[in-house]
Amino acid sequence: MAPVHVATSAGQYPIHIAPGRLQHVADSVPANATRLVIISNPVVDGLYGNALRQALADLNKPVFTIIVPDGESFKSLDTLNTIYDRMLSEKLDRRAVILALGGGVIGDMAGFAAATYMRGIRYMQIPTTLLAQVDSSVGGKTAVNHPLGKNMIGAFYQPVSVDIDIHVLRTLPAREVSAGLAEVIKYGLILDRAFFEWCESNVAQLVALDADTLAYAIARCCELKAQVVSADEKETGLRAILNLGHTFGHAIEAGLGFGTWLHGEAVACGLVQAAVLSGKLLGLSAADIERVRALVRAIGCPDIAPDLGEDSWLDFMQGDKKTEGGEIRYVLLPAIGQAVVQAAPLNLVQETLSETVGDIAIDRSAVQTRDMTATQA
Amino acid sequence: MAPVHVATSAGQYPIHIAPGRLQHVADSVPANATRLVIISNPVVDGLYGNALRQALADLNKPVFTIIVPDGESFKSLDTLNTIYDRMLSEKLDRRAVILALGGGVIGDMAGFAAATYMRGIRYMQIPTTLLAQVDSSVGGKTAVNHPLGKNMIGAFYQPVSVDIDIHVLRTLPAREVSAGLAEVIKYGLILDRAFFEWCESNVAQLVALDADTLAYAIARCCELKAQVVSADEKETGLRAILNLGHTFGHAIEAGLGFGTWLHGEAVACGLVQAAVLSGKLLGLSAADIERVRALVRAIGCPDIAPDLGEDSWLDFMQGDKKTEGGEIRYVLLPAIGQAVVQAAPLNLVQETLSETVGDIAIDRSAVQTRDMTATQA
Ligand SMILES: NC(=O)c1ccc[n+]([C@@H]2O[C@H](COP(=O)([O-])OP(=O)(O)OC[C@H]3O[C@@H](n4cnc5c(N)ncnc54)[C@H](O)[C@@H]3O)[C@@H](O)[C@H]2O)c1
Ligand SMILES: NC(=O)c1ccc[n+]([C@@H]2O[C@H](COP(=O)([O-])OP(=O)(O)OC[C@H]3O[C@@H](n4cnc5c(N)ncnc54)[C@H](O)[C@@H]3O)[C@@H](O)[C@H]2O)c1
Ligand SMILES: [Zn+2]
Ligand SMILES: [Zn+2]
Repeated sequence: MAPVHVATSAGQYPIHIAPGRLQHVADSVPANATRLVIISNPVVDGLYGNALRQALADLNKPVFTIIVPDGESFKSLDTLNTIYDRMLSEKLDRRAVILALGGGVIGDMAGFAAATYMRGIRYMQIPTTLLAQVDSSVGGKTAVNHPLGKNMIGAFYQPVSVDIDIHVLRTLPAREVSAGLAEVIKYGLILDRAFFEWCESNVAQLVALDADTLAYAIARCCELKAQVVSADEKETGLRAILNLGHTFGHAIEAGLGFGTWLHGEAVACGLVQAAVLSGKLLGLSAADIERVRALVRAIGCPDIAPDLGEDSWLDFMQGDKKTEGGEIRYVLLPAIGQAVVQAAPLNLVQETLSETVGDIAIDRSAVQTRDMTATQA
Repeated sequence: MAPVHVATSAGQYPIHIAPGRLQHVADSVPANATRLVIISNPVVDGLYGNALRQALADLNKPVFTIIVPDGESFKSLDTLNTIYDRMLSEKLDRRAVILALGGGVIGDMAGFAAATYMRGIRYMQIPTTLLAQVDSSVGGKTAVNHPLGKNMIGAFYQPVSVDIDIHVLRTLPAREVSAGLAEVIKYGLILDRAFFEWCESNVAQLVALDADTLAYAIARCCELKAQVVSADEKETGLRAILNLGHTFGHAIEAGLGFGTWLHGEAVACGLVQAAVLSGKLLGLSAADIERVRALVRAIGCPDIAPDLGEDSWLDFMQGDKKTEGGEIRYVLLPAIGQAVVQAAPLNLVQETLSETVGDIAIDRSAVQTRDMTATQA
């Protein structure tokens, strides 16, 4: 498959997508790199670290690995400092290159380390979760969390390449796959009706991790995200449409406590809620709202939101970073495949909440099972 | 005086230079700034904080001030974290603007805070030392120190404006003025022979802080630095010439312990040493070398280097960040007003050291005294 190209103010970079791409990552390493630094966590390094080091061996460049603990709570300034300490102790110079091997947590933190080590060195994204492959590894948003807010400290800093191996998804927990598919659907909803319909037709293969189906879906998402990012690198306007479902989703994550639902699960439910609100405000048809709901269920994500209480809902939505000057601005759908960003009358939001909140039990039996014995690519 | 403009990949920004400019800083504040955050230290805030807040009052924007301790040792990740904490507690959004009021320490650290707060907010430089006015505030290099090296963590991130008030230099300790003048001379040496000669003719007025003379010198330095920075924003080539005198100077700073000599004093001595080495390697004339030495003395800086021992000298020069792959590359002068970057044979470096090292006593009586009773602008 031809690489997807992302155009940025600092030049363009390729996204390579293929089953087994991990074995060919050496092709993406800049020729004048002095040393290579893999940043990963124990889970991902245990599964794919050796394969990656093997793939780099022929380059004859010194490689060393920094392992940080697994989990969102370690995407912190403290962990970042341990990365700086290691890199400086190893006397890495400005021509060293970082390889971020992992999900969005590793990608965001390793990217930020690259952005700030000696005022910026090059880095490569090797995303290993579906969410990271279709979303966080593309677009140059890097960050760590702060006790007072997620992703509060960061930079816009583009990688030199993104290498996506479809096979690594075979070891990803099924819930993580479902959560990643929520972001896949999102791209269709905001930008590409035909792709949304393709997802409807191919949802069984997606959930079953069929390699060709996934490769197509991931490539399409990367293309769509690349278009948006190129048009709005620093997130001053258009890029906001990528937050479809995220205002509701953020309230779910914060209201239940981060980590209770996965980010993608909360977003999936938020997609349904945004569709319902779009119906009230912009006339999205009942049939289209129903299609959104059905696809969210088919990928194994919740379509009924938790009952946080109306006041909490509004507070948590207000806390969303998109809010400036206090007014909540929603990404909404005039139709499937088109997005706008606008405020909404309080009564319509209240109606939406009362119609979408309920007793929830995530029913994973609805999700087509797949062969969980598959291991490392 | 017309502003100097700095062209960067992200657009251009103005440098306003005038006696009393502090009273007009409001003109530089972006109209859509939501809130203003002054970052300063107790010394500079005590001298100029109120004048600045007064100058901003008519804008009717909320202003708050973050005071960090004075000194290079506080240009650290720890201090940076206290800045993040304050900014997040105050719920500053992405349209807040930071005003860096102070010398290079404040400018570098506040600039890096701006580069990384919510992936980058705008900031204004209001440099109050001569070094910051002619060097650190222009060019977008921001950083903090790490125990394993100075300026190791940072970003290239341009301010929206630089506002330079000549009058604030009246409270600057005389040694700091001399150190700043070393960087002034440097620009003439690397890029502009006529400016070097102008400095020779006007050195008495410079040392006495004559406002018109200083305004011209600062503007010329900013123009020259802006040219270099525009041509090489990310320091991949040309920008290295700005390091004339810095390889030797760095060894002096590190060898004596940082802070023993001021950075500019060490650089001044390094200018003489670089001139001597240029004579040996590139034929810079004895007369020109003598002119460099004479001007360094006239601004009140040392022209004889401390005796660190030859091995230490070489080790400390090796430790310089410009070194990649182990070879020391020097900025050298084929003539006054022209610079090249190249390696030098060890024996010529050794000769240079033996000829420039000696017993040193910085003789400040040579420096024309000036009216130290002048206070706040
Ligand atoms: N930069 C952006 O534009 C952007 C966009 C969206 C989300 N994000 C960030 O991404 C993060 C979430 O990323 P995530 O969902 O990838 O979470 P994650 O990085 O925590 O990965 C989820 C879990 O899967 C494990 N894992 C990763 N790859 C695996 C594999 N191939 N097999 C088995 N296990 C594997 C990880 O170790 C982890 O336990 C959040 O911090 C979020 O803020 C960033
Ligand atoms: N970013 C760059 O391109 C660049 C270039 C050169 C140097 N630097 C950095 O700049 C820093 C040195 O800057 P500096 O020399 O301005 O030191 P500084 O900021 O420490 O200031 C020197 C002293 O003067 C005081 N001071 C500042 N303004 C004053 C005033 N108007 N009146 C009285 N006292 C005043 C300060 O409080 C401090 O005690 C270093 O950290 C260096 O790494 C950065
Ligand atoms: Zn998301
Ligand atoms: Zn300097």
